[in-house]
Amino acid sequence: MVKPWQDTTLPAKVRAADLLARMTTEEKTAQLSSVWLGADIDTDSAAVAPGQHAYVAESAVLDALLPHGLGHLTRPFGTVPVEPAVGAARLADLQRRVRSANRFGLPALAHEECLTGFAAWQATIFPTPLAWGATFDPALITEMAESIGTSMRTVGIHQGLAPVLDVVRDPRWGRTEESIGEDPYLVGTIGSAYVRGLEAAGIVATLKHFAGYSASRGARNHAPASIGPRELADIFLPPFEMALREGGARSVMASYNDIDGLPGHAHTGLLTHLLRDTWQFTGTVVSDYFGIAFLESAHQVAATEGDAARIALAAGVDVELPAARCLPVADHLSEDLIDRAALRVLTQKCELGLLDRDWQPVTGSTESTGSTGTAGSAEDALIDLNPPQMRDLARVVAQESVILLANDAGLLPLAAEGLRIALVGPLAHEQAAMLGCYTFPRHVGVNHPELPAGVDVPTLAEALRAELPGALFVDDPAQADICLAVVGDRSGLFGHGSSGEGCDTEDLELPYAQGALLDEVFDTGTPTVVVVLSGRPYALGRWADRAAAVVQAFFPGQEGGAAVAGVLSGRIEPSGRLPVGVPRGPGGQPAPYLAPPLGRRGDASSVDPTALYPFGHGLSYTTFTWDAPQCDTPELPTDGETTLRLTIHNTGERPGTEVVQLYLHDPVGTVARPEVRLVGYARVPLDAGASAEVHATFPADLAAYTGADGRRVVEPGALELRVSASSERVHHTVPLTLTGAEREVGHERRMRCEIRVK
Amino acid sequence: MVKPWQDTTLPAKVRAADLLARMTTEEKTAQLSSVWLGADIDTDSAAVAPGQHAYVAESAVLDALLPHGLGHLTRPFGTVPVEPAVGAARLADLQRRVRSANRFGLPALAHEECLTGFAAWQATIFPTPLAWGATFDPALITEMAESIGTSMRTVGIHQGLAPVLDVVRDPRWGRTEESIGEDPYLVGTIGSAYVRGLEAAGIVATLKHFAGYSASRGARNHAPASIGPRELADIFLPPFEMALREGGARSVMASYNDIDGLPGHAHTGLLTHLLRDTWQFTGTVVSDYFGIAFLESAHQVAATEGDAARIALAAGVDVELPAARCLPVADHLSEDLIDRAALRVLTQKCELGLLDRDWQPVTGSTESTGSTGTAGSAEDALIDLNPPQMRDLARVVAQESVILLANDAGLLPLAAEGLRIALVGPLAHEQAAMLGCYTFPRHVGVNHPELPAGVDVPTLAEALRAELPGALFVDDPAQADICLAVVGDRSGLFGHGSSGEGCDTEDLELPYAQGALLDEVFDTGTPTVVVVLSGRPYALGRWADRAAAVVQAFFPGQEGGAAVAGVLSGRIEPSGRLPVGVPRGPGGQPAPYLAPPLGRRGDASSVDPTALYPFGHGLSYTTFTWDAPQCDTPELPTDGETTLRLTIHNTGERPGTEVVQLYLHDPVGTVARPEVRLVGYARVPLDAGASAEVHATFPADLAAYTGADGRRVVEPGALELRVSASSERVHHTVPLTLTGAEREVGHERRMRCEIRVK
Repeated sequence: MVKPWQDTTLPAKVRAADLLARMTTEEKTAQLSSVWLGADIDTDSAAVAPGQHAYVAESAVLDALLPHGLGHLTRPFGTVPVEPAVGAARLADLQRRVRSANRFGLPALAHEECLTGFAAWQATIFPTPLAWGATFDPALITEMAESIGTSMRTVGIHQGLAPVLDVVRDPRWGRTEESIGEDPYLVGTIGSAYVRGLEAAGIVATLKHFAGYSASRGARNHAPASIGPRELADIFLPPFEMALREGGARSVMASYNDIDGLPGHAHTGLLTHLLRDTWQFTGTVVSDYFGIAFLESAHQVAATEGDAARIALAAGVDVELPAARCLPVADHLSEDLIDRAALRVLTQKCELGLLDRDWQPVTGSTESTGSTGTAGSAEDALIDLNPPQMRDLARVVAQESVILLANDAGLLPLAAEGLRIALVGPLAHEQAAMLGCYTFPRHVGVNHPELPAGVDVPTLAEALRAELPGALFVDDPAQADICLAVVGDRSGLFGHGSSGEGCDTEDLELPYAQGALLDEVFDTGTPTVVVVLSGRPYALGRWADRAAAVVQAFFPGQEGGAAVAGVLSGRIEPSGRLPVGVPRGPGGQPAPYLAPPLGRRGDASSVDPTALYPFGHGLSYTTFTWDAPQCDTPELPTDGETTLRLTIHNTGERPGTEVVQLYLHDPVGTVARPEVRLVGYARVPLDAGASAEVHATFPADLAAYTGADGRRVVEPGALELRVSASSERVHHTVPLTLTGAEREVGHERRMRCEIRVK
Repeated sequence: MVKPWQDTTLPAKVRAADLLARMTTEEKTAQLSSVWLGADIDTDSAAVAPGQHAYVAESAVLDALLPHGLGHLTRPFGTVPVEPAVGAARLADLQRRVRSANRFGLPALAHEECLTGFAAWQATIFPTPLAWGATFDPALITEMAESIGTSMRTVGIHQGLAPVLDVVRDPRWGRTEESIGEDPYLVGTIGSAYVRGLEAAGIVATLKHFAGYSASRGARNHAPASIGPRELADIFLPPFEMALREGGARSVMASYNDIDGLPGHAHTGLLTHLLRDTWQFTGTVVSDYFGIAFLESAHQVAATEGDAARIALAAGVDVELPAARCLPVADHLSEDLIDRAALRVLTQKCELGLLDRDWQPVTGSTESTGSTGTAGSAEDALIDLNPPQMRDLARVVAQESVILLANDAGLLPLAAEGLRIALVGPLAHEQAAMLGCYTFPRHVGVNHPELPAGVDVPTLAEALRAELPGALFVDDPAQADICLAVVGDRSGLFGHGSSGEGCDTEDLELPYAQGALLDEVFDTGTPTVVVVLSGRPYALGRWADRAAAVVQAFFPGQEGGAAVAGVLSGRIEPSGRLPVGVPRGPGGQPAPYLAPPLGRRGDASSVDPTALYPFGHGLSYTTFTWDAPQCDTPELPTDGETTLRLTIHNTGERPGTEVVQLYLHDPVGTVARPEVRLVGYARVPLDAGASAEVHATFPADLAAYTGADGRRVVEPGALELRVSASSERVHHTVPLTLTGAEREVGHERRMRCEIRVK
């Protein structure tokens, strides 16, 4: 007889509740945690963060756990290198073992990292999220994420621990490369686009880190975040809200840091009051790895690991990752709290088909369930996690993310024939300059130097030789017509690189003495193009006046070499825009562009935080003119909208892509607000001589901010829309007046300015 | 007939209310502002901050103002250099003019700066507040402040715009030198001591800046402060609370910055709900200079300057400084708000005797009122603002503030005879290395290079030649036995120095290429003593392993040269302790010592914020041993207290002063808390071979902190008192257990650990 929880005609929550009612406390609790199989793991693995070895289970441990069932499986592909088909087969075997050991026949939910693509050996390596931000192209990021999600589903993964929606506040933070940018609107729109793609492929997207992680003191990883309620509401939370509402994310990960003393994993206000009660989120909240145990050992808000579990569960964490540690030793856990969390997990499993009677693990094709698909059994089939269509996507994202910061001397694009080029800088010859810290080679592969990267990752040097067959690469600068100076980062984890998780910096001076290298290069007098391949912006003011050109790419992935080389040669038109400002000097952080007047350059401080190249900046090889915009209703009610129309012309002799950016300036409010913030943008590709009309529909809701009394309101009064090519380069200013009454807005408010390009 | 407001037998508030009832709106409003006479002012004066010229009034303007009366007079001594007796006579003339022009015969309240002593020409220049912090000697600071206040009263000043109670959070901030340190308990106790002294002399002390100013983003002056309610309550506010309660301060100055968007001058929560309703403060709240106008021009929370005045008055600001600008153009000011502020001002004037019928301005002696003194008229008498007893005090404060950071090679104290010394570093020869930015010579005198400093300020070079008559000062290091390398700051204002108001830095690298100078010095191999004369700590890690010794003084004032020289020679025993940590490297800020575990060194970040020399550190020329403390009751109720007794022995052959420091470590709480914080300290002077018993009474109230629910509570459970010689050097740990119920504590709680030395 089919039990209600097996009845696929019933709603998921009804089925999950029925199952829950049949479970023992041990069985419910088992659904709230995970197993990280480490039989093969190298205990020096860089993928294993400090302190985490204790979490890695021997296979034998499973025997004790499995009779109660198992909530999650941790990183079946991202722990050690494994051939995709072999990994999929092993995972399927493991799932069969899990199913057969518990009385309900429930499989586990398998999660993986997927920040720069599926973090598995031989999987396509995409650009890092900071590069997604640089594309200003949500549709492309959705396409990328869907392809990533599809490949994960193919091998039996259900949940991806991405995207990172932390708004960059201080680029000294090593995880800046994992973030999308320093503007909440950009982070929210690009992040939501990624979520939409991942979820469209059936993968549970996980929004992280909730919340405030990027504001850690001194940009030191895990350090406390000093954030008041308004800054939290207007800077840190909107990307999460947008990604839940517009992206449909089904999971949220709590953050390691504390905000004003309250650790993310103990933050009832965020995890329950806001996320559940206000935003009506129904998915799961997972802990960051070891985040629950840190409540005891690091935050010291729990006397024991058991207390830590109780506190986290009460605050609203549902799943302990990467493995059961605190939950099993927790006494006096309230059954209500266990039920609340287990119901969420089981409901999600139900939605994924994992409660279906005929669910079968599959490899090589989409997982099979009786309700949603056909059974597959192609365990031996070749699984290609880096197929041509994904490589194409990786190439397009890389190409759109390359930013031409300066081209004062007009030296770019490079002449094709006979050019003598001195290529200097160690990073020109390293894959580590292309790959973010969550790519498989940098995350895990570093511990397996005997293995190749798994995918083809040309260095910039290799890509340039392919790109410029007519050029002569010379060793002596003295013989060179130009110098290409390649500087930036090696990504890594916890001190094993200059950028990446745990690789924070004290300032934004180029690492590895590359500043001194640039000094030497410029002293030669050879015209020099500076190419920065990095995970964060670095101070370039010392050379800005002397550089013939400056090109920035943020860990552009396996196709990044060709993309950068293509921009240098002119095969690719540069179209990226800075998702975070490039500072003039190495000190003075934090200095986000998103600041009220007193946070910017002023008479009161001898320190000028103005970026050398501001947020949104990026050049083309062609030129554009922007006609004055027409605004259909410069006066609009506080619940209304207005439409701007403007025409942009490519007045140069090459094709190119302009990025129209709308910034909002609100002259008077009840609290200090950022001088400008991004409220809309669109890429406008134009052939030489061509024009396009841009229609931007601005809803008054976008003027909402959290006022002195803590309410989010749209106020009547004057506004300015700045139609701009960057946060500092304003082409036209459109005055608007909001009329009518002040209006409080909530979760239902419009969060987006729709821009169409005709 | 004597009106009630003139009746000195009635309470001040009754008299003020009676007077208020007789006033027109114009007369009341006139009491809420000031005049800054600038007939002689040099408009390029560094004492005039950017944007303030518009405030400086021509004498003629007075004619229009005076018939309505006048609230304050701004800086009669600190604007241009004036002989004290001449200044006092001018002020007395001006007060007669003010009195005779209004129908009530009311004089103005004259305010001045007094941060490093009375900011007047020829007045004694004391060490800067960071040096007060280094003394760990509240009684001495009280004595100093009383002498400062007495000299101010002598020339007709009523209010002093000091002390600064901002807790240092990021020493890149230029006003670090004006602050007392990075621990709220040190700031609160030393700050309260200063207030007690100033108020004992009859001068209204002004607590500033209320609040959060030192947390400005990137340490840029006036930039926004990101602070949540708990950090505000536990770090920033306690010094103000203590100085009001224990010091009896009668005025508070609002802060320029915003906290989480709310500007200090518009912060009803701080200025009214906390200060008035909770703390029951009855004095005046004054604006910082131009702070009300900034609500319109900089914070953009007011559409007009009139609105700015209305917002500030409603929030709780009573007096616009330095001059009437916004108040006069404010329409629709509520009469209730005007009355509220005017009553506070008039009550304060009444308390000062300014409402008395027979009040007369005096010069050369204490101001005269019928109720409190005798009339004086010694306008022509010599007024000495730098008498021997004040110079003595300045010398003692300077001596106690000098910190011996390292003496690894035992090179100090210096041999007296025949030593060949290479003295290097430009600051060895500059007064600017001795004087904080609020000293008259650096604040105003810089604009009058034709005038001498007004007091004798020997440079360190001059002091050393006097101190070491038997030494030979050589120019070639090659001939030297040792090198004294003197590095640090020139104080100044708004970019005219390397430290001081508006002189922020991007990092903590020594300014003026003095780091390169030190590199050169150390390359010579000559044993080198580094002497830092500065307004903030600088990164010294690059030379720490090679320095024979390191001595730190924070702008030690006119007697500072002899004090530093005396420590070097051994005439003075070094006894200062660091009020703020000295960092290893120049980047990585902010990195206050007051951090929970995740804010400190850890596995999760490659950046180690540990100070090179931590808060509380300082050495002696002798040695001490600390016996294990006896604790009378290791278990105490949450409303109880316990007493520690320990004996300290001077085991060396010289006299010396140890500073006993008690730090509290609370192992478990509901929020993340600093690993340790200072809860008590005492100087213990000991002759060679002598011992002293130290009795410390620790009230459980000192364990109070603001918990997850926002209430300040003392919780039962385990505590540790760390009996220490610095925040990192723990001699003994005393476990305590608090018993009984959790207890909420408020403004009445005990805030101090009394320590007696027998």
